[in-house]
Amino acid sequence: MKTIYSDKHRLQHGQAELFGNKLVPCHERPVRADAIRARIEEVKLGPIIAPGDFGINAITAVHARDYVEFLHGAWEAWRAAGGEGDALPCCTPMPDMSRRLPTSIYGKIAYYSFDATAPITQGTWEAAYASAQVALTGADLLIKGDRAAFALCRPPGHHASRAYYAGYCFLNNAAIAAQSLIARGMKRIAILDVDYHHGNGTQSIFYDRDDVLFVSIHGDPNEDYPFFLGHADERGVGKGEGYNINFPLPHGATVKEWFNTLAVSLEAIRKYKPEAAVISLGVDTYAGDPISHFKLDSEDFLRLGERLSTLRLPTLFIMEGGYNVDAIGMNVANVLMGFEETRKPALA
Amino acid sequence: MKTIYSDKHRLQHGQAELFGNKLVPCHERPVRADAIRARIEEVKLGPIIAPGDFGINAITAVHARDYVEFLHGAWEAWRAAGGEGDALPCCTPMPDMSRRLPTSIYGKIAYYSFDATAPITQGTWEAAYASAQVALTGADLLIKGDRAAFALCRPPGHHASRAYYAGYCFLNNAAIAAQSLIARGMKRIAILDVDYHHGNGTQSIFYDRDDVLFVSIHGDPNEDYPFFLGHADERGVGKGEGYNINFPLPHGATVKEWFNTLAVSLEAIRKYKPEAAVISLGVDTYAGDPISHFKLDSEDFLRLGERLSTLRLPTLFIMEGGYNVDAIGMNVANVLMGFEETRKPALA
Repeated sequence: MKTIYSDKHRLQHGQAELFGNKLVPCHERPVRADAIRARIEEVKLGPIIAPGDFGINAITAVHARDYVEFLHGAWEAWRAAGGEGDALPCCTPMPDMSRRLPTSIYGKIAYYSFDATAPITQGTWEAAYASAQVALTGADLLIKGDRAAFALCRPPGHHASRAYYAGYCFLNNAAIAAQSLIARGMKRIAILDVDYHHGNGTQSIFYDRDDVLFVSIHGDPNEDYPFFLGHADERGVGKGEGYNINFPLPHGATVKEWFNTLAVSLEAIRKYKPEAAVISLGVDTYAGDPISHFKLDSEDFLRLGERLSTLRLPTLFIMEGGYNVDAIGMNVANVLMGFEETRKPALA
Repeated sequence: MKTIYSDKHRLQHGQAELFGNKLVPCHERPVRADAIRARIEEVKLGPIIAPGDFGINAITAVHARDYVEFLHGAWEAWRAAGGEGDALPCCTPMPDMSRRLPTSIYGKIAYYSFDATAPITQGTWEAAYASAQVALTGADLLIKGDRAAFALCRPPGHHASRAYYAGYCFLNNAAIAAQSLIARGMKRIAILDVDYHHGNGTQSIFYDRDDVLFVSIHGDPNEDYPFFLGHADERGVGKGEGYNINFPLPHGATVKEWFNTLAVSLEAIRKYKPEAAVISLGVDTYAGDPISHFKLDSEDFLRLGERLSTLRLPTLFIMEGGYNVDAIGMNVANVLMGFEETRKPALA
């Protein structure tokens, strides 16, 4: 399969995130994508291509225009207001507070985010825009007939909602890609989010829709970020009721439990009869991940790829999380090779 | 007038707050109260007394019981979960997210707060409880006939709402005191908040009530923390409509503007005909304050006290913000002396 990749991901290079009670070097850093790309080349997965430009409208089909305009101008406004270094939010609105957008950039950042893990830097907009275009290029490949594509997105996207960011994510690449598949004629898309963390943004974006099924396997929000979405009883609303399926698992869930849950997820997707699958591919389910609590090993990611191929659907892989940079290349490549291998004689 | 003071304030001694994109030493620190106490002694304002204990029910009359239980146990839960150092929140719920309380302490901290400026430390509960008792003791003095009292509360309270904390505040001392005055038979209380920052917690707590008038002069939330409450058109709801009065002022508002606004505030309070006034006394309106943008000088605080005395009401001063520790003692004492001086021959 083809990999879509842009060097512009390096423009998102934040200095620090608030982690526990410390500012630590960002877990979501350029070396992640570099390591994945290197491994993709090493295993000769297929061509690595540059993204096309599908424009801003493919992004505002998912994100609120005011939010996109904010992201586009945030860095300059922050600098103009005297901000030094990366921009982090000072606070966030509580549910009983006003939803009026402050005029100050400090207030705007607070309005549009819900944590201090996603620094806005000089290159954030350009990197996030390129990451969305990487996803859109992958969707385009599917429309043109490719069986699968790997959008090596960075920054990731699944915590970004229609009008807010957090969790290392600014634009929801998976949602943007799924929406573009719909816009180009597909009737039903299934998004399967296998990142360790719940894809709260993707859920929120499609929560009232039946043309995009969202299925997620993730750390129980009772115990894990993002804490306030991802429960099993969040099943969609209105027309979307029944088209949001969450499988929260406890800390330290076994690999067997995880794969059993994957089997149930795939069954739900089959039943939905989608025309394509979008996989929010996080490999922070890896036992060696520094910020997560599942137990998959690198071999398990081969198996994950194999299982995904059993859907026999045009499949777009969208890169999300995974923070063990020594293993991230192998783990991601294993998923993709596992997916491809089902069409070839097995390797010894 | 009497000052009520407890050494237990020193138990709240956080290491760092997130300020801009840096963790900096907490602006809200023990030396603030120590400096105020020293100046109160120096100017011989009156006796300094220890607080009584009016129990937990006077606190839960204002704060949700689950929130109070959380605060009481948060530090131990944080330590038990492996937290090291002070506890800061990792994120907060957005308005469209679930309002389900996570089981993990990390999630609970995220649920009950809206910024990373108020570290929960080993002594936070004890200090916050003592601070509330300082306020309640002040209210008790008023009930018993004192014309005025100064509750030297620390930590401060006005950003804490019924069930969340932030902005250096955990329990809303002013709200707890006002509520206790009502519980002890007063029919109408006016709270005047002259802290630089809007008292979002106090507003929220009394927003639907007509027995507590809330009036605040503060930095415009378009430009300043807490950003999401404090607009002029927030006038209360239901029975409370008309009993919430906000006077947001722009950065760098002149001293003349500030005192003109004070005059309008006092007129609104007179019109309400309260039985007592509770003053949320922040002196971060001082020109030399490190985090604020008004221009009062130390002499102006004498004048503020004089003006407040013109209400001719039993008056309870509740200490809130003010972060210039070199000037905080003088500025606070000046307010209180200005208030007292109106009964005595003026000093030269």
